Amino acid sequence: MPGRIIEFFFDIGSSYSYLASTQIDGVAARTGVPVKWRPFLLGAVFKATGNDLPIKLPPKARWMVGDMALWAKHYGIPVRVPSRFPMVTLRAQRALCAVERLSPDALPTVAKALFHAYWADDQDPTADDTIAAAARGADIDPAPILAAIDAQETKDLLRATTDEAVKRGAFGAPSMFVGETLFWGNDRLPLMEEFLKRS
Amino acid sequence: MPGRIIEFFFDIGSSYSYLASTQIDGVAARTGVPVKWRPFLLGAVFKATGNDLPIKLPPKARWMVGDMALWAKHYGIPVRVPSRFPMVTLRAQRALCAVERLSPDALPTVAKALFHAYWADDQDPTADDTIAAAARGADIDPAPILAAIDAQETKDLLRATTDEAVKRGAFGAPSMFVGETLFWGNDRLPLMEEFLKRS
Repeated sequence: MPGRIIEFFFDIGSSYSYLASTQIDGVAARTGVPVKWRPFLLGAVFKATGNDLPIKLPPKARWMVGDMALWAKHYGIPVRVPSRFPMVTLRAQRALCAVERLSPDALPTVAKALFHAYWADDQDPTADDTIAAAARGADIDPAPILAAIDAQETKDLLRATTDEAVKRGAFGAPSMFVGETLFWGNDRLPLMEEFLKRS
Repeated sequence: MPGRIIEFFFDIGSSYSYLASTQIDGVAARTGVPVKWRPFLLGAVFKATGNDLPIKLPPKARWMVGDMALWAKHYGIPVRVPSRFPMVTLRAQRALCAVERLSPDALPTVAKALFHAYWADDQDPTADDTIAAAARGADIDPAPILAAIDAQETKDLLRATTDEAVKRGAFGAPSMFVGETLFWGNDRLPLMEEFLKRS
């Protein structure tokens, strides 16, 4: 079906969003369905839905460390539990919304750089330096991005994206929508790919 | 590594346990690692760990219906949301523990029959008729199984299995252990298979 897209709602602070961010281009390539990267605020999704961080449950938190390591080996990607985990990613998500407003084509590259900074290099994804380096890596000028982080239009975009995701049924991250079908979690990428190939 | 087993902790009332129950023989066949079926009581696991039914979160409950349908299509198996869902499966789990005590070789076949009765045929997996039919389907006499459901040894086995799973780190179902590595969820079967083939 032409005109379809994968809407990829993600938060830099979400471990499984990181995993999915390393694989979603592959799904797009194999299905011919493009990805629209949509930064949202997972903390606000939790508040709106009554969901909570999975790591609040101690045995689940312990399991997740090993689970992440198994996925990293499976995908062949680096991963480590960030020293700042869990953290308030508001400023990173706003920076991504600033990129979405000012240089939308650079959004996937900047987002991947922030994911890598946080989940592989243990950097602070909300720091000016990290954001500026991610922008430069995507060949865009960091100055207007940094200047736009606290702009009302940027805040409004993050809030609108988050509200929209919740309204459409999201309750965690990553949340991938194909039309109104929700695929929740890195582990649902194969089901989404099968769905896209079938329909 | 010889001597390894997959310990498959499951509850008939758990949708993702049902999905996994239809696939785990395949993992065993492809890896040469046998499966030990271990009926436990998911409700008691939730109580012990502070976890809760995922369907308590309304958007997750809505998502799960579609998710189950996608998995069913992926696996080519029947599934429907049972009219009794969620239900207290205590008696079904005790019946399986009775089988484990009296006719252990029949346990996988009886368990699969109860899963199918509940998740495909919308029958009550705690009813004598359902349990008796499952036993007969596994070529064992239903009478001693039914008689042993409320035996103290049966209750003790279910409690011991559940306590053991929690002690080893389980917090949901299905929980598959390979040694002390926990694979939680039907969606982790591929990672477990990869782990078994690698190690």
